[in-house]
Amino acid sequence: MTNNIVWHAHPVTRHEREQVNGHGSAVLWLTGLSGSGKSTVAGALEQALHQQGVHTYLLDGDNVRHGLCQDLGFSDADRRENIRRVGEVAGLMMDAGLLVITAFISPHRQDRQDVAARLSAGHFIEVYVDTPIAVCEQRDPKGLYKKARKGEIKQFTGIDLPYEAPLNPDIHLDGQKPLDQLVKQLICELKNREIIG
Amino acid sequence: MTNNIVWHAHPVTRHEREQVNGHGSAVLWLTGLSGSGKSTVAGALEQALHQQGVHTYLLDGDNVRHGLCQDLGFSDADRRENIRRVGEVAGLMMDAGLLVITAFISPHRQDRQDVAARLSAGHFIEVYVDTPIAVCEQRDPKGLYKKARKGEIKQFTGIDLPYEAPLNPDIHLDGQKPLDQLVKQLICELKNREIIG
Repeated sequence: MTNNIVWHAHPVTRHEREQVNGHGSAVLWLTGLSGSGKSTVAGALEQALHQQGVHTYLLDGDNVRHGLCQDLGFSDADRRENIRRVGEVAGLMMDAGLLVITAFISPHRQDRQDVAARLSAGHFIEVYVDTPIAVCEQRDPKGLYKKARKGEIKQFTGIDLPYEAPLNPDIHLDGQKPLDQLVKQLICELKNREIIG
Repeated sequence: MTNNIVWHAHPVTRHEREQVNGHGSAVLWLTGLSGSGKSTVAGALEQALHQQGVHTYLLDGDNVRHGLCQDLGFSDADRRENIRRVGEVAGLMMDAGLLVITAFISPHRQDRQDVAARLSAGHFIEVYVDTPIAVCEQRDPKGLYKKARKGEIKQFTGIDLPYEAPLNPDIHLDGQKPLDQLVKQLICELKNREIIG
């Protein structure tokens, strides 16, 4: 600040933050149809990780659509911008040392690849929550499929718009398995990758 | 996931994250002219806090302008949108339990008030890095004042555009004091607010 002060500042690195936290940082990107179970799995996983002292954060429509992305609608361009911003925020949070979990349909393969490309290699973990659309439609937790079938909602993924399933996801979840099994599978995968101990 | 599984999921709360971290979360919003010392103070503070085991993150032009806000230019509307997004990300990171430090000129009083209004009361801490423009211009670490005076940069805060100084900042820093004193002052303020121990 003044000429006679020399401050050997260096930015705090992600690696240093990981050391304080005692675990690695990553982005666990859940993709799947509406009703596939993304948010449920993400919430249960976060709860389990938190109980183990892991520093996590869950990004989903609830905390993004009403804030950071409140200026965006549901056109294709806006949905892509939504995913882009979520990817950028997830990257910043990962840089902050967090294990970030995201739960968005994110139907476009290219959009997911673009997010992956922005992050350090091996830190974007694509998780495909694979649930047949018939099962999703039967669950229909928010009544959205019903509205889409009636034409009250246009451009609904799986009905009017395609969902591009991951061709080679890092983790494949059978969305019809019990929740506790899915959480165990994810925790096992995180341990195998030495992200958590 | 299946009808016979009942998972008593509850979202992990900010309070629970703070308990794991051992300190509170907040947004320390540094505002001031270009060259006032915002980034230097922010970087030194983060380094000092990290050494004390505090979970921090520093948002500044470097990590936001090339990513989350790469679609924005430097028009007044775009600058305001830049600040809005930074505020939203800071809010999410605070929700994740972090002590967030931001370093942006953020010249508009209204924009800063809008960010404050989006966060829980008492968690937005406005820090005015108060350095006379003559001193900033003499420092001119990036040569921006020189370019602005030559007319090579238009709409430069303090030259062509007004800087609306905080009327009643939560913390007032005399940007001409030595860096170590400013860091000590901020740490003292964070202790007084019981954000850190």
